[in-house]
Amino acid sequence: MDNEDTLLMIPGPVKVAPRVLRAMSRPMISHRSAEFGAIYDDCRALLGEFFETRNEVVIMTGSGTVGMDAAVGSVIGPSDKIVTISNGKFGERFTEIGERYGQAVSVPFEWGTPFDLEKVKAALEDGARAVAMVHNETSVGLTNPAKEVGKLARKHDAIFIVDGISSIGGNEFLTDEWNIDIAITGSQKALAVPPGLAVVAVSSRAEERFRDKSASYYADLKGHMKSARKSPTQTPYTPAVPLFFALQEALHMAHEEGFAARRARTTRQAEAVRAAAAALGIELFPRVNEHSHYSNTVTAMKMPEGVSDDHLRGGMKKQGIVVSGGQEKLKGKIFRIGTMGVCSSGDILRTIQTLELVLDKEGKLLDRGAGVKAAGQALGI
Amino acid sequence: MDNEDTLLMIPGPVKVAPRVLRAMSRPMISHRSAEFGAIYDDCRALLGEFFETRNEVVIMTGSGTVGMDAAVGSVIGPSDKIVTISNGKFGERFTEIGERYGQAVSVPFEWGTPFDLEKVKAALEDGARAVAMVHNETSVGLTNPAKEVGKLARKHDAIFIVDGISSIGGNEFLTDEWNIDIAITGSQKALAVPPGLAVVAVSSRAEERFRDKSASYYADLKGHMKSARKSPTQTPYTPAVPLFFALQEALHMAHEEGFAARRARTTRQAEAVRAAAAALGIELFPRVNEHSHYSNTVTAMKMPEGVSDDHLRGGMKKQGIVVSGGQEKLKGKIFRIGTMGVCSSGDILRTIQTLELVLDKEGKLLDRGAGVKAAGQALGI
Repeated sequence: MDNEDTLLMIPGPVKVAPRVLRAMSRPMISHRSAEFGAIYDDCRALLGEFFETRNEVVIMTGSGTVGMDAAVGSVIGPSDKIVTISNGKFGERFTEIGERYGQAVSVPFEWGTPFDLEKVKAALEDGARAVAMVHNETSVGLTNPAKEVGKLARKHDAIFIVDGISSIGGNEFLTDEWNIDIAITGSQKALAVPPGLAVVAVSSRAEERFRDKSASYYADLKGHMKSARKSPTQTPYTPAVPLFFALQEALHMAHEEGFAARRARTTRQAEAVRAAAAALGIELFPRVNEHSHYSNTVTAMKMPEGVSDDHLRGGMKKQGIVVSGGQEKLKGKIFRIGTMGVCSSGDILRTIQTLELVLDKEGKLLDRGAGVKAAGQALGI
Repeated sequence: MDNEDTLLMIPGPVKVAPRVLRAMSRPMISHRSAEFGAIYDDCRALLGEFFETRNEVVIMTGSGTVGMDAAVGSVIGPSDKIVTISNGKFGERFTEIGERYGQAVSVPFEWGTPFDLEKVKAALEDGARAVAMVHNETSVGLTNPAKEVGKLARKHDAIFIVDGISSIGGNEFLTDEWNIDIAITGSQKALAVPPGLAVVAVSSRAEERFRDKSASYYADLKGHMKSARKSPTQTPYTPAVPLFFALQEALHMAHEEGFAARRARTTRQAEAVRAAAAALGIELFPRVNEHSHYSNTVTAMKMPEGVSDDHLRGGMKKQGIVVSGGQEKLKGKIFRIGTMGVCSSGDILRTIQTLELVLDKEGKLLDRGAGVKAAGQALGI
């Protein structure tokens, strides 16, 4: 029997509030109506605040990747260079997209290790039309120095593209202050909406340098911006209407809590997971430094010695809690717990408690209740 | 007060059954789980039947356009020719996509008039890697001769791409029998799911000729097919999970009715609209011949002499019924009524009755009740 009460503690899709699910299930409306336009406008206004930007915001139907695709393809053509910085799976995706449309100058770092800003600087000194990076590298649980790279990008007059998909709304993310020309998020992360929408904020500086035609037909920021300026506000192609209903409701929920308050709560929740890991003798995966921090939205931990992915995640799954494993080269080596959106203290405690029980079964629990206690303290319980 | 009972009689998004809306509002699941894989598999199997194909079916998150984009961009590169046949807005979209990625050889016809197959033949005789057309041209309410073009495509060894977005499930559409290599539909049409998914059926013949890398990163059929062959079945990027829930439920509903029975019902409903139009002295817009027929899914009618779009559609909207206007050059000149998916006889009668009242107000109603009577007869009431 599926009781529909599985607890999703993965870094997206995340748990969606019943209030948002109800809003999503409203009957269809025409996507060319004033009613749809008003919903889009309301979302755009709130998203501007959410992104900490005065830039124009458009919403595309697709996964976060369609936003990354649109950003790169709207700016980069066959003869253009784009510096792509990576220290995980999603940074590498920017390199793949850059190679598809132009000349990607890849600046790779070991997965889960901080950027060496000198290397980024050197790559930019050779000249590039754009630089792209991931702020919160979901695959390794590390935030990257967007502010610092943004300064370098502006100095070298490069368009600055930042994947904020698993970051915006969970970590500090200052689109305008950090000189981010194109910032991207996905609906299924800190916004706590089901997946299927990419949100993209575009500076006038980026827009002025858009190519005549984007590399991709569908993933075309110019077309989306043109339609968003029509009256009523619309999208160039038929949008996923129910996800707009959901987004509007979720934005109102987040706004009621306060965007800053939600970030602060998310921060406490990630601290709770890290405190529990420490108390249970579980090592965090990423390496941090003064510019690169543990993520507030996803905590990546090394798989405890002698415990298999199957036993750890499989054991938790049996108790109705889904956490993520490692991706690609990290498969079986790490596991990841997401803390985003409407995740509650109870969700965190239930997760840690279950992790303890699974470790106990594996004979790897050092100190019974220590994880829950540490998490509870961090949560202020 | 919004009672949420507006009747959508536009050619997509169409009315969604409450049962489908409820299925859509289930809590999120992981898109990399066996549970999601099972839903995707179930949808793929039923969609094969829906498309009348043994070809592989993939589902992309995006509007129908992302499917058109993926089809063209997976096959056509800068030096490749693609013949694009058009007699309306969506045919012209294929030309735009073809021009974006390769050499589009446009074979245009007046909007709403049948293809001249001799011209198509001549274009193919000059050699082309692919030919693309729209089966049911939503903008003008006309079905185009896919079967005949399919024969020409096969003869000239061109990949045959057909936009079946507003067609499949409403009109006869025989993917395999008509030699269609890439067939596309959208969730918000005859499937009666909210918008946000494109479904694409791909022949092995097309797959063998895929380019190494598709023109677009996100709209990449190769990537979607690779992920769909993984275990569990999945998508390359995070899919719009709720729309998969909705699609599965809607496919089961359609299967319960019977795919052929639904097409027959849709046919009767379109006949009812056309019969009402004739009884009310309203001219149908498209020109038909032995290969090109009035659409079963959307009826395009000329705006009655002396009645403005604002009065006709605006008047109906005031009574809670939304019908579509003309697009681009047809703005104000035609209006369109969609009959797809779970549209009921009651919906048709309410629409025609309201149209009569609006015409009466304009002093243009020739014979009170004649439209409703004709529609009722066609519906077998």
